[in-house]
Amino acid sequence: MALFSIKLENLRQLFVKELRDLYDAEKQITEALPEMIDAANHPELKQALQEHLQVTEQQISRLDRIFQMLQEDPAGESCKGMKGLLKEGEEFVSAGGDPSTIDAGIITAAQRVEHYEMAGYGTVRTYAELLGQHEMARLLQETLDEEKEADETLSDIASSVNVESKAA
Amino acid sequence: MALFSIKLENLRQLFVKELRDLYDAEKQITEALPEMIDAANHPELKQALQEHLQVTEQQISRLDRIFQMLQEDPAGESCKGMKGLLKEGEEFVSAGGDPSTIDAGIITAAQRVEHYEMAGYGTVRTYAELLGQHEMARLLQETLDEEKEADETLSDIASSVNVESKAA
Repeated sequence: MALFSIKLENLRQLFVKELRDLYDAEKQITEALPEMIDAANHPELKQALQEHLQVTEQQISRLDRIFQMLQEDPAGESCKGMKGLLKEGEEFVSAGGDPSTIDAGIITAAQRVEHYEMAGYGTVRTYAELLGQHEMARLLQETLDEEKEADETLSDIASSVNVESKAA
Repeated sequence: MALFSIKLENLRQLFVKELRDLYDAEKQITEALPEMIDAANHPELKQALQEHLQVTEQQISRLDRIFQMLQEDPAGESCKGMKGLLKEGEEFVSAGGDPSTIDAGIITAAQRVEHYEMAGYGTVRTYAELLGQHEMARLLQETLDEEKEADETLSDIASSVNVESKAA
């Protein structure tokens, strides 16, 4: 048992905790994305990351609406998972060498970020449904669909970037 | 540009780097899983995590084979992403309160771990194919399939655990 252990009494409490975790994760992403956009070499990758920055801001607005509906404060969690994932991304952002290989690295880091969000939003969407919060479930599903789409876009870009990296 | 930036010259180098990242991630998982198994309350969840510990050991053996084929050392990377994800898991492992809600928390942390691995193994499987390493690609696909299966098993268990947590 850790010295400062948390107490979880019911699903609503866990729902709010997980929403706060995702809120902090999204905030971290908006701070990290501009550096990734700068470091990306392929115009297609730059554009996809740029678009994702705008999408992320909409996703934060959706979470803001949900916190208002719940009458809860969005602050209070520091997302340790996202912190680690973004550290991995920084390594590629600051890397030297072949531009296509660096882009391939940025894509793999970004896809780990997307997968974190897919797991996270899938969970809170399910909790919202169980708690009878159908409007919240709808909003969270919208974000979940966007994350899956972003992952597919990155896979598409990777298919050409990886071939160029192989030829380097 | 960071003080100690890495250099990436081609896809093979990135492939080895990403394999080492996953190797370290799997090692971290084998260290963290026993605590999660202890903390889990539902017998079904305990058993699923126990089985996943065995599967993880097989996945490490597969990576060992790949490193032998590549004549490369598996050591050298510290997986920062997995470190963050497992810290999130520890929070639930040490949590107090309603057993089903704690289990729901453990499941959400474990599903983030699975998603990290899905993203990671999907990437290295694709790199292996591109590099003409078909046997490696086959081994990595096997692990990828196991990770997807583990994620689905956790979703199945969650469906009953979440309902009990809601009723808490």
